[in-house]
Amino acid sequence: MSEPAVKQIVLASRPKGLPTHENFRLQDVPMPELPQGGLLLRVLYLSLDPYMRGRMDDRKSYAKPASIGGVMPGESVSEVIASDQAGYAVGDIVLAHSGWRTHAASAGAALCKLDPAAAPITTGLGVLGMPGFTAYAGLNLIGKPKPGETVVVAAASGPVGSLVGQLAKLSGARAVGIAGGSEKCRAVVEEFRFDAAVDHRASDFAEKLAAACPNGIDVYFENVGGAVWQAVLPLLNPFARVPVCGLIAQYNATGPAPGPNLLPATMREVLSKSLTLRGYINYEFAAEHFAAFLRTVGAAVADGRIRYREDVTDGFENAPAAFIGMLEGRNFGKALVRVAPSGS
Amino acid sequence: MSEPAVKQIVLASRPKGLPTHENFRLQDVPMPELPQGGLLLRVLYLSLDPYMRGRMDDRKSYAKPASIGGVMPGESVSEVIASDQAGYAVGDIVLAHSGWRTHAASAGAALCKLDPAAAPITTGLGVLGMPGFTAYAGLNLIGKPKPGETVVVAAASGPVGSLVGQLAKLSGARAVGIAGGSEKCRAVVEEFRFDAAVDHRASDFAEKLAAACPNGIDVYFENVGGAVWQAVLPLLNPFARVPVCGLIAQYNATGPAPGPNLLPATMREVLSKSLTLRGYINYEFAAEHFAAFLRTVGAAVADGRIRYREDVTDGFENAPAAFIGMLEGRNFGKALVRVAPSGS
Repeated sequence: MSEPAVKQIVLASRPKGLPTHENFRLQDVPMPELPQGGLLLRVLYLSLDPYMRGRMDDRKSYAKPASIGGVMPGESVSEVIASDQAGYAVGDIVLAHSGWRTHAASAGAALCKLDPAAAPITTGLGVLGMPGFTAYAGLNLIGKPKPGETVVVAAASGPVGSLVGQLAKLSGARAVGIAGGSEKCRAVVEEFRFDAAVDHRASDFAEKLAAACPNGIDVYFENVGGAVWQAVLPLLNPFARVPVCGLIAQYNATGPAPGPNLLPATMREVLSKSLTLRGYINYEFAAEHFAAFLRTVGAAVADGRIRYREDVTDGFENAPAAFIGMLEGRNFGKALVRVAPSGS
Repeated sequence: MSEPAVKQIVLASRPKGLPTHENFRLQDVPMPELPQGGLLLRVLYLSLDPYMRGRMDDRKSYAKPASIGGVMPGESVSEVIASDQAGYAVGDIVLAHSGWRTHAASAGAALCKLDPAAAPITTGLGVLGMPGFTAYAGLNLIGKPKPGETVVVAAASGPVGSLVGQLAKLSGARAVGIAGGSEKCRAVVEEFRFDAAVDHRASDFAEKLAAACPNGIDVYFENVGGAVWQAVLPLLNPFARVPVCGLIAQYNATGPAPGPNLLPATMREVLSKSLTLRGYINYEFAAEHFAAFLRTVGAAVADGRIRYREDVTDGFENAPAAFIGMLEGRNFGKALVRVAPSGS
């Protein structure tokens, strides 16, 4: 076996609007050394998630921005290829904050071992990982749907949205998904078994959404913002709950947004309908609720009550293209990059 | 005793922006008859409250709009002048949804008897009434300040805001008030004993507010909206709570608001700081919490731990002018109209 090619992708420059290939740089680097008491990892799958766009900006947020020249942050499913830590053996599969790398040294502290016999290892980055828990926490801990209520979620064919709708159904609520294009809308209904799907690209989107929600909206799981929010707002019922999980429609915005000023109308609805808007980052709830999530959603995935979909791009060097495509909504399911074949 | 002049004020036309005198009409009407099993009331004090502005618009909200030609809605402290209902005697003092009238017939169902020996009867319209409970519910049930946290409230010399700050202090939090002009700011600190007050009319208002909140803002009690919200937003701490109780700065807005569009920036903060925005109307919480409010705040008013201020206009016919003045921020304390001297 020859020495493997070791690569990483760094932030070359900060994007203005949608990232381009010029914002990323692929680098060949030496194989990292096994840290004393730590592990050496080979990345099998790299996760691509919308939050990474935020890290590319130099803006105060809940996490530090990536630095220019620094490795892009991200989670992976990795294989232990050398271990100096009791409890980890070569061949173990772990979730790691490896960043965009083919190989990583790890102190072993923030790792989570995966059991390849329990579920496909990629689910640790999707339906049984951070995106899945994000859906679970926002819907069940903030949205709290009651039987018979209507839950609406955008990006409904994505890893978070598809689980939100399926969990809403399991709670006895009606699930309406919003997705881009007829193919995704069909999957939302046929594959993920929502009650209805509405195409946000349709010219009569707002009317279609209203028709799909004859009893109004009780929970709107916000992960896009923008025009979808404007269509949702008049349909919200008194005491509706809005977990704010993401705003992908405005992540690439540059400079102040042009008028009209839509804030007063939103605030008026918040007041007159006693709405709750609650932003959150999934790890706020992890310590208390992750184990219950894994138990209940893991069981539902295992017996087929919950379905998931993955969009796998082959080859580490294609990560920037796959990431840009995801921000444009071109992925269909949890975006992953297959970096190395498992067990090779 | 001659037959008293019986008057009412009706909505003559819907205002565009700030109401004018032309939107109201004073009418002489016959004395109402004592309803079978009901009461006849003489209004002593009429309450003027910002929510009434909303009722003047023909817009769907949590309550029906007033109709053109219909009596303006509102609460009063009234005296029973005739009774056909067991439990009510002539001379009893009651809180009534009388509307803007000097005399009213009542079925007696929605009344609340006041004990003039327990507290001045006007407090039933202010610190121990709906405005007081609005402050209590928003701060304690939504804002939930913890000792050492910073609570900010606008319209801090008003009946709701002044109580919000005093309740925050009783919870061990730091209270910062926003008010218009140096006289009101002085009262916020000296009379209502807030830790600091900031004049929103100052050209360096945002800088002054930041200086008054060196540890950021944990609870912002929203009752104005507009420019004050823009100054508060960057100061909010992670997990800050924003009870949305009123938006007086935008009640008189006509047509769509000009740009820039401030909604994306607000939503970004909601997401990145895990903020909670929660609109509410006080009566959502009344059944469960009004008795506890009356007990605790009543005791604190009685022993001087909580202070209040009233702005009384004499003469029923001056109600429209006093109401317009209140919307412009010219009142100083709970706005009341003395309709008839008590016990005359």
